[in-house]
Amino acid sequence: MGDIKTSNKHYMYAIGIDIGGTNTDIGLVSPAGEVVARKNLPTAQYSDANLYADDLAKTIQELIAEQKVEVKGIGIGAPNGNFYTGCIENAPNLNMKGNIYLAKMMEERLHLPAVITNDANAAAYGEMVYGGAKGMKNFIMFTLGTGVGSGIIVDGKLLYGHDGFAGELGHTIIFPEGRDCKCGRKGCLEQYTSAGGIRKTCLDMMSQDPYYDGILSKVPVEEIDSKMIGDAANAGDELALKVFEYTGNILGLAMANAVAFSSPEAVFLMGGPVKAGKVLLDPVMKSFDHNVLSNYRGKIKIMVSQLKQNDVAILGAAALVS
Amino acid sequence: MGDIKTSNKHYMYAIGIDIGGTNTDIGLVSPAGEVVARKNLPTAQYSDANLYADDLAKTIQELIAEQKVEVKGIGIGAPNGNFYTGCIENAPNLNMKGNIYLAKMMEERLHLPAVITNDANAAAYGEMVYGGAKGMKNFIMFTLGTGVGSGIIVDGKLLYGHDGFAGELGHTIIFPEGRDCKCGRKGCLEQYTSAGGIRKTCLDMMSQDPYYDGILSKVPVEEIDSKMIGDAANAGDELALKVFEYTGNILGLAMANAVAFSSPEAVFLMGGPVKAGKVLLDPVMKSFDHNVLSNYRGKIKIMVSQLKQNDVAILGAAALVS
Repeated sequence: MGDIKTSNKHYMYAIGIDIGGTNTDIGLVSPAGEVVARKNLPTAQYSDANLYADDLAKTIQELIAEQKVEVKGIGIGAPNGNFYTGCIENAPNLNMKGNIYLAKMMEERLHLPAVITNDANAAAYGEMVYGGAKGMKNFIMFTLGTGVGSGIIVDGKLLYGHDGFAGELGHTIIFPEGRDCKCGRKGCLEQYTSAGGIRKTCLDMMSQDPYYDGILSKVPVEEIDSKMIGDAANAGDELALKVFEYTGNILGLAMANAVAFSSPEAVFLMGGPVKAGKVLLDPVMKSFDHNVLSNYRGKIKIMVSQLKQNDVAILGAAALVS
Repeated sequence: MGDIKTSNKHYMYAIGIDIGGTNTDIGLVSPAGEVVARKNLPTAQYSDANLYADDLAKTIQELIAEQKVEVKGIGIGAPNGNFYTGCIENAPNLNMKGNIYLAKMMEERLHLPAVITNDANAAAYGEMVYGGAKGMKNFIMFTLGTGVGSGIIVDGKLLYGHDGFAGELGHTIIFPEGRDCKCGRKGCLEQYTSAGGIRKTCLDMMSQDPYYDGILSKVPVEEIDSKMIGDAANAGDELALKVFEYTGNILGLAMANAVAFSSPEAVFLMGGPVKAGKVLLDPVMKSFDHNVLSNYRGKIKIMVSQLKQNDVAILGAAALVS
C-alpha cells in the first residue's frame, strides 16, 4: 500500500466521503470536526469503478492542494460499504455494478489509509464523535431517506458483526405479509418509514378516502413526496397527520424491538422525513412507550440527530480514520 | 469485599449457579469445563433473600469442602440477573421480591469474586466456552422454555448494552395485535415459541378443527404440553405437525430479524421445545431462509446447542469467572 503517512495524526485533517446514488460529497474535516471545504462528484454518471476512483482521487488531491493541509486518511460512507473488506458490495442504487474495492483503490492512488463503512454507520459514528451522542457508548441511529438504514454503537464501537453487515434494521420484517420490498421480501420497515414508504401510505389513505379534499388533493399525484406530506401535516391537514401517525406507530414499534436487542442509552433519528418534526415524533414517542418492554421504559432517550444533515455522513466517515 | 482470592486462577475450579423459579442448581466446574459435582436448593421455598443467600453460601461451602478443591469464583445465571449491578432485579418468577444484590451477598459470605448475568446470557456464554460455538465470536442463542430468552455474543463478549439488559428477544413484538403477554404487551415472540406458546397454538388449532380425532384429542386438555405435542408430531399427527410448522415459521422470522441486527456467524437454539427435533427445525430453517435478507442468506449456521441442557447454564455461569 505504498508509503502511507501516519505521523502527527492527531493534528491532521481527514477526508470524509459520502457516496450517494446521485452525488458523492467529499469534505475536508479539521481536527476540531468542521467541514472546512467540500467538493462533489456526480456518482450516477459513472458505470466504471476505475474511472470513478480516478476522478475521486483527483478531486481529493485538488481539495488537499487548495487548502494546503496535511491529511491523515480517507473515510468513506457508501451504500453496502463493508468495513472488513473495504468493499462496496453490489450496491443496488449505484450504476457501478459488482464488488468495488474502493478503500484499496484510494490507498493505491493517494498513498493514504482509507476505510469504508455504510452510510448509516458513518452517520452513527459522526453523531457519537461530533453530535448529540457525544459521550454515549450505546445507541442506535435510524436514518430515514430513500431507504431506511441504521448504525448501532455498542460499547463505543460500531457493531459490524461477523461479516461487516450488521445493522440492517430497515430490512427487519414488521408485517410478514406486508408491502413488497425491493429486497425481494415483504413487510420490511423501510417500506413504511422511508420517504417512499410515507408517500405510499399517503396514496393508500387517499384511495381509501375518495372524499378527501385537503391540501394534497390539489396536487398532481406524481408531485406528492414525503416533504410535501410533512408540510401538509404541519399545516393541519388531517389525512397528512394520519399518514405520519401511521408512520410513527410503525417506527416506534421497530425502535422498541431494536432496544430489546442492545439496550441502548438512546435512539437517534435523522433524515428527510424527520424534518417534519412533531407530527412524526409525537406518534413515534407514543408508540415507543406503548411497545417497549417495561425493563427499558422511561430509561431511553429518543433524539433527533444534532448534526447538519449535509455534514453528518462526511463527519462520520472522516471520524473513522481519526 | 474482604480477602478475595485471585492466585493461580487458570488452574482453579469455579462454581456455576443456575437459578430457576423452582430449583437452584449449583455445580462445581473443573478447569477442563466439566461439572464434577452438583447440589441444589429449592428456590421456590424462599421468600427472604438473606436466608436464601445464607443457605446458598452454606451449600457452596459444603460442595467445596467435599471435593477438596480451590475455587476461583462464583458465576450466577438468574432471571433478570444484571451483570453491571450484580443484582437480580424484580424477577417475576421468584418468590423473593424486589432487588436482590446476590453477587455482593455471595462475596460477603464466601470471600470469593461473584458475578451474575441472566440465564440465557449464561447459556450463550457456556456454548461459546464449552459447546458448539467454540471459536465463534458473533452468534445469537435463543433459549426456549417456560419463557423465551436470548444471549447475544458480539466480538467474543456478551452484549449487555447500556444498563445490562440487552438481549430480550423473547419480548420483541412479532404481531402488534397478537397474543397477550405476561409482560403486559401483545404479540411478543415468547407467546408463540415458548413451551406455553406452543401449547396455546395447539389448543387454538384444536378449537378450529372440531373434527380432529388424532393423538392429542384422546388426552385431557390440562395434560397437553409442548413435549407431548412434539411426541405427537414425531408420530405423524397432522395437527401437531401444523403446530410446529406455525411455531417454526414465527421463530424463523424472529431469527431473520435478529440477524439483521448483529450479523452473526450462527444462531443457536436450545431448550425443551427444541428437543422435538426436525418437526420444529425444518420449518425454522425454511422460514429463516425465506425471511432473511439476501445479504445474509446462506452465510449463517442454524445450530442446536451442543451442551447437555442441565449443564449449559452452570457451565456458562462458571465460565464468567474464568
